[in-house]
This record gives sequence, C-alpha cells and structure tokens, in this order.
Amino acid sequence: MLCPSRFPALHLPWHGVCKRKRAQTTHQNQRINKMRKVAIYGKGGIGKSTTTQNTVAGLVEMGKKVMVVGCDPKADSTRLLLGGLAQRSVLDTLREEGEDVELEDIRAAGFCESLCVESGGPEPGVGCAGRGIITSINMLEQLNAYKNPKGEDLDYVFYDVLGDVVCGGFAMPIREGKAEEIYIVCSGEMMAMYAANNISKGILKFAQTGVVRLGGLICNSRKVDNEREMIEEFAKRLGTQMIHFVPRENDVQRAEINRKTVIEWNPECPQADEYRALANAIDGNDMFVIPKPLSIAELESLLLDYGLMAA
Amino acid sequence: MLCPSRFPALHLPWHGVCKRKRAQTTHQNQRINKMRKVAIYGKGGIGKSTTTQNTVAGLVEMGKKVMVVGCDPKADSTRLLLGGLAQRSVLDTLREEGEDVELEDIRAAGFCESLCVESGGPEPGVGCAGRGIITSINMLEQLNAYKNPKGEDLDYVFYDVLGDVVCGGFAMPIREGKAEEIYIVCSGEMMAMYAANNISKGILKFAQTGVVRLGGLICNSRKVDNEREMIEEFAKRLGTQMIHFVPRENDVQRAEINRKTVIEWNPECPQADEYRALANAIDGNDMFVIPKPLSIAELESLLLDYGLMAA
Repeated sequence: MLCPSRFPALHLPWHGVCKRKRAQTTHQNQRINKMRKVAIYGKGGIGKSTTTQNTVAGLVEMGKKVMVVGCDPKADSTRLLLGGLAQRSVLDTLREEGEDVELEDIRAAGFCESLCVESGGPEPGVGCAGRGIITSINMLEQLNAYKNPKGEDLDYVFYDVLGDVVCGGFAMPIREGKAEEIYIVCSGEMMAMYAANNISKGILKFAQTGVVRLGGLICNSRKVDNEREMIEEFAKRLGTQMIHFVPRENDVQRAEINRKTVIEWNPECPQADEYRALANAIDGNDMFVIPKPLSIAELESLLLDYGLMAA
Repeated sequence: MLCPSRFPALHLPWHGVCKRKRAQTTHQNQRINKMRKVAIYGKGGIGKSTTTQNTVAGLVEMGKKVMVVGCDPKADSTRLLLGGLAQRSVLDTLREEGEDVELEDIRAAGFCESLCVESGGPEPGVGCAGRGIITSINMLEQLNAYKNPKGEDLDYVFYDVLGDVVCGGFAMPIREGKAEEIYIVCSGEMMAMYAANNISKGILKFAQTGVVRLGGLICNSRKVDNEREMIEEFAKRLGTQMIHFVPRENDVQRAEINRKTVIEWNPECPQADEYRALANAIDGNDMFVIPKPLSIAELESLLLDYGLMAA
C-alpha cells in the first residue's frame, strides 16, 4: 500500500501547502480540531464515487485521517480504496446479526489507513433507502466510529450520497445535520447542471434553518465544449466556486479496472496530481455559502450563451 | 413536425415488418387490444430518458399510439419529444390547483402525436419521490389519460423511472402492477451491470406474485471493449436477451442540443435507424421472463472473462 511515509517527495509538497492554507482556514472558521463533515452529491452516473475516493486518496496521502461512508445501496463507494467490493454493509450486518454489531464488522481500513464503511440499502424494491442511511449513521455514532483505531479524532468524514436530492430520504444527511459541507459533482452536460441546480435548492431549504453550506462545484469533465468556462460561470451565479476542474482521462478507468484509486495505481501520472489538487483545494477551502439556485430560464440562457442549446 | 404521413418511404418498411411481427406476438401472448405497460430502468446517467424518447419516436413514426410518463423529479423525460422543458408536472399542478386538475393541464402532445406527461417530484429534499409517482399515475387513471384525444385506446405507455430500483418508492410502478414489461438500459461499464443485476432482483421479487416480467436489456454503448459480446452473455445468464445494441454516436447529443429525438432531427441518419430497429424489436418482442439475478462472484467472473476487471 502506498502511504505518505513511502513517498515523502510526492507527498510533502502538498502537505506543506495544505498545512499553511489550513492554518488560515481554521482561523477563519474556528474549525480547530473539529471533524469536517462533507457530503458529495450530483446526478446519477456523474462520477461521485470515483471522485470521492480519488479525492480521499489525496487527503490520506497528505496525512489526513478520513472515513468514507458510502450511502448507495449498490455499496460501491469504497471499492477503489479497499481494492474490491467484499465488505459487508451496515444494513446487511444489522439484518443478519441484529443490534449486536461490532465496529470491525462494518468498518474496514483501505488505502493509506482510510476508513471505509458501506451503509448498504434495503432489499431492492422495498423500504426507504434514505432512512437506511440514517440508521447506518446512527449506528456509526453509537459505535464511536468517528475516531480512528488509535482513538484519535478524524479530520474528515465523507458521505457519498446516491443520485440527486430527489426525496426526503436522500436529503437525510443534510436535514439531520450529519453533513455540513456539500460539494456537487457536475459536468457541462445539461442534465448534470439541472441536477446540480436542484441539489442547490435542497441545500438552500435546509441551510436557512441549519448549518449546511455549499462548498463548491467539482467539474468532472465530459469534454463538452466550453465546459470549464461554463461551469465557472454557473458556479458564480449560484454564489459558489468551481473548486476544481477534473479533466477526463482514461487513467481513471484503468485504475478502476484494477480496483484502485489513480493515486494508488499510478502515483506519478498527471491525473493523480489533479486529484491531489482537488484534495488540497477542499482542505484549504474557506468559501461556504447558502446557494442561490437559478430559475430554469436562467439555466437555459446559460446553456444558450455557451452554445449548448439551440435558440 | 415529422409524421408518418409526411415520410411514407421512411416509415412504411418498418411499419410493414412490425405489423407482421406483431400479428405473431399478439397471437402468442393474447395481447389483442391490450395496452402494453412498459417501464425503463437503469443506473443513473446511463441514458434512460434519451433511449426512451428516441425509441418512442420510432414507435409513433410506425403509427403506434404512445404515452410517455416521466417519473423523474427533474421532469426531463419528455423534453426531446416536446421540444423543450416547459411542461407543468402533475405534482406541481396538484400543488398549485388542488384536485381540480384537467387532463390538458398535465398532458401535452409531442412529436408525431406522442402524449407526454411529467410526474414531477416532491420539493427537493422533502417527501417520497416514489409515492409521488403513484399519486401521478392514479391521477392519470382518474382523468382517463390512457386513451388518446380521439378516445382511442393507446398501444403503449412508457414509464421512464429515475435511477436504480433502490427503494420501495422507485419500485412502486412494478409493485402496483402499473408496469408489466421492463427493459433495463445498461452498458459494459461495471457499475451499470451491477445496477442492472440489482434491478433484476427487484423484478424477481415482484414477478413471483405479480405480472411484471423482464423484456430485455438495451445496451446503450459506452464503447467499452467487448461490450456487445459481454452484454449478450450477461443477458443470457439473466435468462433474458439483449434486445438491441445502440451504438454510441454524437448525433444523439446533437439532436439533444436541438431538443429533438434523432428521428425528428435527422430522420435519415444511421442512428435514427438504430432507434427504429429498437422500437421494432420491442414491438415484436415475445420474450418475457422472470430474471435470474447473478451473484456478485458470477458478475465479477463475467467482467474478468471479458477483460474488464483485473484478477
């Protein structure tokens, strides 16, 4: 396993930058010693799980203590960190063993001491998937899973949440204050932008009475024309930022076939640096906003301006 | 608008084939005069809405009477047939006008007399999206929406259902007998196949006590190596068929930018013929099965055999 100690040259420059930036951030936000609770949302198929795991690889390589909680019934949110899908989900374990669950039954260590949990889901077609997520998070809290095996507090938990926020179930991590900092993965494809706008509506709803804030858009490029400029403009109109533009690159798929994040599979390839840059940007982020969703007309005029819709 | 009467040469050959095949099919299945209730499922982002609308364009061009009911809160399932997103959804209309809804408020005519409805969704982050779908379908039944404006019975209704079957809500159209014939859109990408297998589990669950059957896999190509052969084999192991292989082609995106199906945008391009072939295959389909989902180990060995997973 690739760990910071084995690759100090790769690791330290980022670590240095990050420490400096983080010092400012914690000062500005009074976040000293407080675990950051991050959730990643975005249209189905946009690459949330891939982006989350590759970013987490960047954070753990920096030395951060991170747990990933997959909130997709397909239980595929930690496969690249763990090197396979073998892990038992929280809900499966609860169904099989009742309440008598041990932390090691449901949490496994992955790449570079990242901690991995899969919430799992109800039996396909039965029950509420969102409610299952909350059951899982409550179980993790009971089991004191937000500390590492040495008993140290974590720096981050990442919730990788299925699909768009379309119903109360999937908004649960936001509603219940389990996630405080949201990143939306999107691309220049029209429906990905609609979904991002819709997710912003969900954040707006709960931000007014709670602590959740939007931390930025992550553009996971689909090589759409003018994509970078358009998503930058879209982010600006939402009142947020494009925190990173991740170029489309076949190395991501190659690493996936090998059940690895890009940083583990080929730490020296340019795409690995892209994910390090994204990890670093999140680590140094201090822009947390209540988003201002666009109307459908504004969104369509944006697509028109950038040539992605006929008049 | 392009209608069969304007393009008899393009239209009639398919129509002829289809009539012949349909005669056999109705004989085999005693489906005379019975509206076929189709639902399209598949992983988020796989192209369900695009595939559904392009296929429906093929069916209406053949002269079939078809209604599409979009079951995605983004309300994007009928945009290409209608030439835009302007339509009001059933749930929005119910919220704004109470129970006093007229059919013309929620159903619009699109390309070639296709009938288009968007179920819509709850406010982002609140309520159950699946329950909203059932409210919409019940409203359509009350309003006698399963006949065309001339009072004739429809040949088809297509439900375009959001995401994977992950919770009871999204399985509602299957559970309540609203959909009887399921097609799963997938590709050779690993998680698209996992999702297809998961959806098959949902179908299996309700097929044993109900009427729902799997009609086939639609491969929406992502240009993965050995994709056609692998999905054919996957379909065979599920006990079903790959009903059509839709090649990846930029004309689909070009048509989308123009808010049109491929058949309307450029009826003579090769991709239009692909969707006609898919429409024709569905129209002549007589293979309806209770699927046999694979275990995760079987699915991974299939991916290994076709070189899409490292040993």
